Amino acid sequence: MAEITLTSDVTWSGEGVRSTANIRDKQVVIDEPQALGGTDQGPNPVELLLSCLGGCLNVVITSFAEKFGVQIDHLHIHVEGDIDPDGFTGKNPQVRPGVLGIRYHIDIESPSPSDKVQALLQHVEKVCPIKDTLSGVPVRVV
Amino acid sequence: MAEITLTSDVTWSGEGVRSTANIRDKQVVIDEPQALGGTDQGPNPVELLLSCLGGCLNVVITSFAEKFGVQIDHLHIHVEGDIDPDGFTGKNPQVRPGVLGIRYHIDIESPSPSDKVQALLQHVEKVCPIKDTLSGVPVRVV
Repeated sequence: MAEITLTSDVTWSGEGVRSTANIRDKQVVIDEPQALGGTDQGPNPVELLLSCLGGCLNVVITSFAEKFGVQIDHLHIHVEGDIDPDGFTGKNPQVRPGVLGIRYHIDIESPSPSDKVQALLQHVEKVCPIKDTLSGVPVRVV
Repeated sequence: MAEITLTSDVTWSGEGVRSTANIRDKQVVIDEPQALGGTDQGPNPVELLLSCLGGCLNVVITSFAEKFGVQIDHLHIHVEGDIDPDGFTGKNPQVRPGVLGIRYHIDIESPSPSDKVQALLQHVEKVCPIKDTLSGVPVRVV
């Protein structure tokens, strides 16, 4: 299959730092808590990034479950990431502006044999698009 | 300032590949179009990743505008990313599962001198947390 190009169009609300991302016919509000100059009407970008990873793991697990002979009764993914505000504020030039590290934990309830569940999760580790992207992707302004 | 840890909790809906990310008191639905086994009730994870980048650029631009003496009348950020489904489906092992490349374009309407606008945008390039994170971040399962 050829490459496909996906898009998002983000427009500033005019108030504080809040924006709305328009993705096809869907909208997501992105904001910051009031302590960071926001109006707290949506997740902040880092929280949304963690959600992308969890959502993508969820898509891949549920997409491949049948192929691996795994029935899923319940699936929950906790994702957390660390950031040091001294990085992006410029207070400490030794600290990167971005996320320092991300951890996730998958809770899966399944009546299927645990070796099948493990095989599914190992496959997911390898092919999850967002996990792979977070190992580094070229980003450029045009 | 010490590191802070942000979280997202993603729960499978039980239907198709759709999940809901719970971030503090906010919720974001993540899904896929019907052609990809979804119910098309939300953006997919890659679209959400592009939105994170646009939303983060928006936060940083609007946060630093005053410091750089820039008034913003209108701000819009278009983000696009390429992916080849043959990667994550495993059809072509030469293709990475993740996003191949991301491009963004910033439209800013401002009555301020263009050199001030350019200085602001150059600063944003350096300190945008999501842009920096996309250069690579350690991700591990726990």
